[in-house]
Amino acid sequence: MRTVLKPAEDAFGHLLTDLLAGRRVVEVVERDDGCVFTGEPDYYLAPFRSWWSQERRAMRFVRGRVLDLGCGAGRVGLHLQSRGHEVVGIDVSPLAVEVARQRGLADARLGTLDSAVRAGERFDTILLLGNNLGLLAGERQGRHLLRKLTRVATDRGRILAGSYDPYDGASQLARGYQARNRARGRMGGVERLRVRYRQYATPWYDVLFASREEVARLVEGTGWVASRFVDDGPGYVAVLDLEANLRRRKRE
Amino acid sequence: MRTVLKPAEDAFGHLLTDLLAGRRVVEVVERDDGCVFTGEPDYYLAPFRSWWSQERRAMRFVRGRVLDLGCGAGRVGLHLQSRGHEVVGIDVSPLAVEVARQRGLADARLGTLDSAVRAGERFDTILLLGNNLGLLAGERQGRHLLRKLTRVATDRGRILAGSYDPYDGASQLARGYQARNRARGRMGGVERLRVRYRQYATPWYDVLFASREEVARLVEGTGWVASRFVDDGPGYVAVLDLEANLRRRKRE
Repeated sequence: MRTVLKPAEDAFGHLLTDLLAGRRVVEVVERDDGCVFTGEPDYYLAPFRSWWSQERRAMRFVRGRVLDLGCGAGRVGLHLQSRGHEVVGIDVSPLAVEVARQRGLADARLGTLDSAVRAGERFDTILLLGNNLGLLAGERQGRHLLRKLTRVATDRGRILAGSYDPYDGASQLARGYQARNRARGRMGGVERLRVRYRQYATPWYDVLFASREEVARLVEGTGWVASRFVDDGPGYVAVLDLEANLRRRKRE
Repeated sequence: MRTVLKPAEDAFGHLLTDLLAGRRVVEVVERDDGCVFTGEPDYYLAPFRSWWSQERRAMRFVRGRVLDLGCGAGRVGLHLQSRGHEVVGIDVSPLAVEVARQRGLADARLGTLDSAVRAGERFDTILLLGNNLGLLAGERQGRHLLRKLTRVATDRGRILAGSYDPYDGASQLARGYQARNRARGRMGGVERLRVRYRQYATPWYDVLFASREEVARLVEGTGWVASRFVDDGPGYVAVLDLEANLRRRKRE
């Protein structure tokens, strides 16, 4: 998602607003091949103890000032704020930002990474959790975003990016979709999706799911290095460190 | 739905198959104005004691040989079969018919009303329950279907048709949709919908929700008379009797 969502597009934000109001809501995700997927969005509000184990364990790699990119309802940002970190949350969903603020995230901003780049801000840890590695969207866009992220990172900058291996235990349907992607020169695990909720629908956008090997290859030459994967079965959190920082540490 | 669903269109049947297998499933219904609605489809398998109160109470108007039109998983048909009625279930969903058979509905048939008309079969009670009054689809199609139903009814033929009043407590969104319908010469409560489930999507079809007054007007001149409504708030079951039968009874 490159730009801020218009009111009629803010399906995700409306869903979070209703969820926060205690309504029972179901998230509908539509894929461009005509598939629909439904899920209970409770995870967007889940407390630390209910998180996926790889996300819980990844928290020990967080340091310093934090940028929570695609912060949603502030699930991760709020946890780190309570642990004493300075956290900036950014989201393209106006209502998600509103929900994050209402839940207590002190610095939740409507926008994209570009606003932080322009402001010349720097962060020690950049979060792409809850499958937000997906924001990399594909090879070209992913490299572009990773390079841009070096510009908001401090010298000891680090990215934590969550995803799962889309080839591990893939259904026949998923394998077919992945094969069509490759035939069109796309990474296998890209999915063109939109979120629908009541009368609201986000624009179509590409979400990347990638294997660990693909992540390691994708980051090459962008200034980042995949220094470790915190795993739980197909799910993982990739820890990406600045190449320059690793080189410096080696010299020391 | 005028014709039998093709395999890729049988979203409803796939949903029922998964439901019967004990999977947690969510029904996604898409409307032609871009709205999506989700629901738990457990009601399709609900035992008598869990039915909506108007449906439970409507059972005392059932008599003789029963046609369950749009029988789905056989919820109503199975109940009446266990009460000793001869029941024929018809559905356009191949997998729904399969599910109804597996659950024990002795005579579940794939097809439309036309197959029963052609076979010259007659029924004492025709069921359009679980909002299957919706199959009337609109004014023109509704009258057409009602006239056709006189041809499969015995002399003491009766229809039980379930719906709810779409104007009672309608949201602003619903009122807007209803106003657009009327502007296009349609009954206010018609909704153009399709069911989506995983990679399956039914064709778009019109579903009629109608007030009691609209039902009474719609049946005029079709051979049927709305002789009573079994109510529960906005929800109701309309009891339609053959006009000829009522006249005969008056003469007696």
